[in-house]
Amino acid sequence: MANRPETIEWIGDTDGYLCLIDQTLLPVELTRIDCRDAETVWEAIKMLRVRGAPAIGIAASYGVVVGMQTVDDSDRAAFDDRFAEVADYLATSRPTAVNLFWALDRLRKLVADNSSLSAADMRAKLLDEAKAIHAEDREMCHSIGRFGAGLLENVSGVLTHCNAGGLATAEYGTALSVFFTAQDQGHNLHVFVDETRPLLQGARLTAWELMQRDIKATLICDSMAAQVMREGKVQAVVTGADRIAANGDSANKIGTYSIAVLAKAHGIPFYIAAPSSTFDLAIDSGDEIPIEQRAAIEITNGFGKQTAPDGVEVYNPAFDVTPAKYIAAIITENGVIDPVTKENVVAMIG
Amino acid sequence: MANRPETIEWIGDTDGYLCLIDQTLLPVELTRIDCRDAETVWEAIKMLRVRGAPAIGIAASYGVVVGMQTVDDSDRAAFDDRFAEVADYLATSRPTAVNLFWALDRLRKLVADNSSLSAADMRAKLLDEAKAIHAEDREMCHSIGRFGAGLLENVSGVLTHCNAGGLATAEYGTALSVFFTAQDQGHNLHVFVDETRPLLQGARLTAWELMQRDIKATLICDSMAAQVMREGKVQAVVTGADRIAANGDSANKIGTYSIAVLAKAHGIPFYIAAPSSTFDLAIDSGDEIPIEQRAAIEITNGFGKQTAPDGVEVYNPAFDVTPAKYIAAIITENGVIDPVTKENVVAMIG
Repeated sequence: MANRPETIEWIGDTDGYLCLIDQTLLPVELTRIDCRDAETVWEAIKMLRVRGAPAIGIAASYGVVVGMQTVDDSDRAAFDDRFAEVADYLATSRPTAVNLFWALDRLRKLVADNSSLSAADMRAKLLDEAKAIHAEDREMCHSIGRFGAGLLENVSGVLTHCNAGGLATAEYGTALSVFFTAQDQGHNLHVFVDETRPLLQGARLTAWELMQRDIKATLICDSMAAQVMREGKVQAVVTGADRIAANGDSANKIGTYSIAVLAKAHGIPFYIAAPSSTFDLAIDSGDEIPIEQRAAIEITNGFGKQTAPDGVEVYNPAFDVTPAKYIAAIITENGVIDPVTKENVVAMIG
Repeated sequence: MANRPETIEWIGDTDGYLCLIDQTLLPVELTRIDCRDAETVWEAIKMLRVRGAPAIGIAASYGVVVGMQTVDDSDRAAFDDRFAEVADYLATSRPTAVNLFWALDRLRKLVADNSSLSAADMRAKLLDEAKAIHAEDREMCHSIGRFGAGLLENVSGVLTHCNAGGLATAEYGTALSVFFTAQDQGHNLHVFVDETRPLLQGARLTAWELMQRDIKATLICDSMAAQVMREGKVQAVVTGADRIAANGDSANKIGTYSIAVLAKAHGIPFYIAAPSSTFDLAIDSGDEIPIEQRAAIEITNGFGKQTAPDGVEVYNPAFDVTPAKYIAAIITENGVIDPVTKENVVAMIG
């Protein structure tokens, strides 16, 4: 497995650089970008070459380290000025990414809390912190994977939707971590992958990640999931989530609710795999989660070719909310929430 | 409505020609092809410029008429030789199209049964028969539409899948005939259209047909149907069918089964609209209907651009079978089968 490219990798010491998979070229081309200055990191985040909340936070942290390579170590005040500039600059790369601000704030606090350190020592401490953010995410993913793999011991085929894999996080991802961990434990699953219209994250990213790890993957259109269930090809469904309410209602990529209803109709357990940071206990239920509407062009001109009439009206919700009653269990890094009730959510996360 | 282009139109008398919408250019371009010889009709069927079982049968019938324009009216024996040649030639245009053979056989029988007619009279009779095939299909669609519209009186929003419209038949189609007829009766429905991956017949053809008739149409991805149902936007689903077993189990475009299960989960009636010719009473249930598997490239390179990894395994069933228990009623030209039981199917069709 040593040759498998990491989504995000730091090469060298404090004078090293950040190396990223350019996800905009997947799945046709696997190209890595060496980021040796903050501008390259900023552009990579802006242009979605690196995507997924945890991955963006990790990339921005390393982006600060390369951004600090332009100041020498003789003057801590100059170092602090440059740090503020770099952190503020990187924060503008993706204005809606919560993990981006969280990671940069963590580094800002570190710099403020260590004002007596020399510039050289501060530089080393920043790299250590970026690596810690990276390692914590990696361990969180592994923990989700271990808890999830335990639920799939009697399963041979699974279905997933969208991309909740290593490309969006450090190494293993959330839903895909369950499959990767099962493989590490010697349990080879056959994963059916919804292509996930309109943006095809399943076809472009999830299928690619599974193939990279030699996991048997079969791509289907979203409309085929019910047929795959009916034929007995899958015995469980695992997806990620974007936001989970206190009662367990889970927002995720459009199409997730459809699969959850279909799974229930076929007597197949539907699992969500998500870190505790995905929970928002301030909201009681999914009814309070607003659904983002996206541009018609994603559906009418998805891949360089017009496939619908000029001026057609389009409904394009980015997400849907799966009510807790359809979710057999939620797999977190702290353990498995089963059954999915407000009481159990608060006990695990609160 | 006079300016609305017909899918299939005969212009003139026996020395006239067939005019077809080139469906391969839809929805971006509306172009009609004038077919003045059998070769042009053959090519139009072969290249899917005209598609849908009834439409192919109608086009081939008119194709025979233009194919006969190369012989003069002086010699009935020469006329018969040429007729056999043209009919055999057109039969090779789409070797799996049952309606193609049915229509050509009907013309063959007509020619055989009228061997005493002059070539000129036979020529006129052939055109009359082609027009009769056309008219019968048109009337069949209207009848389905009237029966179906009666079921939707208290409905404001409906969902459909794939294309069961006028482009595949004469004028009104089957599922779409229900919506067109409701409109004729002054009932304006809002139709949600599944794009219908992988070949996007919903986005390319159904949305276009509805817009041509000023019916409010909203295009969605297949994965959004459950969300549209959950939001109460649709109160009924109507689709076509490709083959219906004696017990009412119905094969139709992949994704239909998914929608039927989702409709049931949301308490929404799911209707099939199909002519009696779609029923195959020789098969007891949907279990006997083989599911055609299609090429991976339809899913991996569907939009003129590769959207999945090289070599990815794909599962691409062209159809699925919706068990009768999910079908609220089947709308035929003879009446509505409700509830869908073998007894009621045989009573209506047998």
